[in-house]
Amino acid sequence: MDATQTPGLGSVSAPGRVAGADEGISTAELALAARNHGLPLEALRYDTTPPGLHYVLVHYDIPAVDQAAAAHWRLTVGGLVRRPLVLDPAALRARPAVTHRVTLECAGNGRARLQPRPVSQPWLLEAVGTADWTGVPLAGLLAEAGVREGAVEAVFTGADHGVERGVEQDYRRSLPLDVAADPARGVLVAYAMNGAPLPPQHGHPLRLVVPGWYGMASVKWLRDITVTDTPFTGFQQTVAYRYRQGPDDPGEPVDVVAPRALMIPPGFPDFMSRTRVVRPGPVPVTGRAWSGRAPVVRVEFSADGEQTWTDAEVTADPDRPWAWAAWRTTWTASPGAYRLAVRATDAAGRAQPLTAPWNRGGFGNNLVQRVEVLCLTPEDPGPAGSPG
Amino acid sequence: MDATQTPGLGSVSAPGRVAGADEGISTAELALAARNHGLPLEALRYDTTPPGLHYVLVHYDIPAVDQAAAAHWRLTVGGLVRRPLVLDPAALRARPAVTHRVTLECAGNGRARLQPRPVSQPWLLEAVGTADWTGVPLAGLLAEAGVREGAVEAVFTGADHGVERGVEQDYRRSLPLDVAADPARGVLVAYAMNGAPLPPQHGHPLRLVVPGWYGMASVKWLRDITVTDTPFTGFQQTVAYRYRQGPDDPGEPVDVVAPRALMIPPGFPDFMSRTRVVRPGPVPVTGRAWSGRAPVVRVEFSADGEQTWTDAEVTADPDRPWAWAAWRTTWTASPGAYRLAVRATDAAGRAQPLTAPWNRGGFGNNLVQRVEVLCLTPEDPGPAGSPG
Repeated sequence: MDATQTPGLGSVSAPGRVAGADEGISTAELALAARNHGLPLEALRYDTTPPGLHYVLVHYDIPAVDQAAAAHWRLTVGGLVRRPLVLDPAALRARPAVTHRVTLECAGNGRARLQPRPVSQPWLLEAVGTADWTGVPLAGLLAEAGVREGAVEAVFTGADHGVERGVEQDYRRSLPLDVAADPARGVLVAYAMNGAPLPPQHGHPLRLVVPGWYGMASVKWLRDITVTDTPFTGFQQTVAYRYRQGPDDPGEPVDVVAPRALMIPPGFPDFMSRTRVVRPGPVPVTGRAWSGRAPVVRVEFSADGEQTWTDAEVTADPDRPWAWAAWRTTWTASPGAYRLAVRATDAAGRAQPLTAPWNRGGFGNNLVQRVEVLCLTPEDPGPAGSPG
Repeated sequence: MDATQTPGLGSVSAPGRVAGADEGISTAELALAARNHGLPLEALRYDTTPPGLHYVLVHYDIPAVDQAAAAHWRLTVGGLVRRPLVLDPAALRARPAVTHRVTLECAGNGRARLQPRPVSQPWLLEAVGTADWTGVPLAGLLAEAGVREGAVEAVFTGADHGVERGVEQDYRRSLPLDVAADPARGVLVAYAMNGAPLPPQHGHPLRLVVPGWYGMASVKWLRDITVTDTPFTGFQQTVAYRYRQGPDDPGEPVDVVAPRALMIPPGFPDFMSRTRVVRPGPVPVTGRAWSGRAPVVRVEFSADGEQTWTDAEVTADPDRPWAWAAWRTTWTASPGAYRLAVRATDAAGRAQPLTAPWNRGGFGNNLVQRVEVLCLTPEDPGPAGSPG
């Protein structure tokens, strides 16, 4: 166990729950939505997502790490290794740098679209982002430390401290060694994002980046790596982040990202409903698609409420296997109300579902995106131009 | 009028409304909360707020302005002026640069704490941030253009395009000339934030920054300034951003920021409730306070449910009159449950209220912040340390 049930904490830290059938979003869920943020969908236009537009999910608080604290930061590598390491950010920056472009997505993306709704961070669809992450390959650090026989996992501890369902803890997750120690999996101990030092909310000064896995694996504010001979049983591994159908179901672990395509909603929005408005004629529709399991090989677009689908043109960079692909199509709009949809399929044959895959934690809901659009008649006037 | 009621748009763009007594946060409100983001309260620790932690509110979509579009961006200054100007970002950067540290707050901050709740972007308390904004004084540009006799306002047009309550529009707001053209008011046409080019969501390549006013005045993606001889009657001036008691009340304009203090919630949080947990002993409590009308002269802290208040130590930088002040106090915690509160008073004698000032748009709700805290008993164990 990585943590202890602390008497007294139960009064402020409740078990997980699922919202009632007609229960609106609660103030507690809203407070999480106000702290954590998604990618505004028009920001899918950027190949790499700037901080502030890239999604962020912080379990507890962003740790206070000023310049002096960053200089004194230590990453320890221990447990079942021959040569325990103590590394500081400067020592890591002095090593040969590796940069990977990686799309990260929160495992809870889509949770608030489930019925009934699991009560947690209420993502709709926007918990994603892509960045160039620079750092040192984890496989190299583990090789340097010398993993001993019998080791099965590496456990990663961040500095983010809090309580969750009664359990006080530092945020902590593990990876199997066949992921952590395999150079081909691309796992990084990163110190830079898009060429700049990590922003505070993205893990300054050091974080893990695990390509292809949901974001919970990419431990931020990383301070310890411990190699173990038994699978990790801590809260974030065996209580949270499981695909469960009920509270007593042990469930399956949440790991690799399911395929998803998102479109930039075309035209312009209504402020409050976010419904889109276009004028008649050809409307370019573009977006991104990704999957943690295998490359996206197909993106289909529908403008008729999912009666028919047409293939979009997909462009992927083979040198960036962990980054989203771009896709584009053209929709010829005529006056009326439409529901657009988009669906990705990966090379492993997995396609996005048209009904949401429910589970009690609200993980991995890759239901297709649907965008309501009104196409105005040609005679609808635009805005008058002058402020005079 | 700056815009026209467009037939057809009514089907996707509803009038403003107030939520029913027991109505939870709607999916539409949640979608706004997922796009726009607040300052995680622990980020009050930074003197200047990095992008991604600074609040952002975008009415419609972040305009697409890539490097080429930024180079071709033009800011026009016209209307009642002797010498109309056409400026590009490079021409502005070539002028002497001025940097002001400014605290910006959204006028809707606190809206979701109102009962009944106006339906719009559902801020709780976190719609604030402070940055060093660099640019060119607006007063100098207006002087160069030569404001003609009879002029009363300057109208600012951004590139953000959408529809709101049936009105299709570019986002547009005005300032009285006694604010816009007075060098002492510090209004800037800014091109940099914290020493870097404006991020897309903060107005790249050019924006207005109006110290002391709520954020709606600081028009982002600025492309036109028109000097007029009549007060502007556009949507964002006369329909939105009014303090109204009912739908037919013309109301008063929303302008200058009301005083507010916020604390960094002490200790560590529960993930879901965000309730704080501390251990017995002295607990430093720090935060920020600001007011658009006059400097904050007093910050009071209460740990007993607002029965008694003690003065915190307030530190303001007289050279940065538009930036928040820092405050600090120490609370000696003993086991039990507490409600902490903090209250600012400015030199104009305005203090934060203990009951929320309701209006139909949910503007200017500077109700005191309240933070629930559990202090554990000394025997409560902490987390076990080892991941083994």
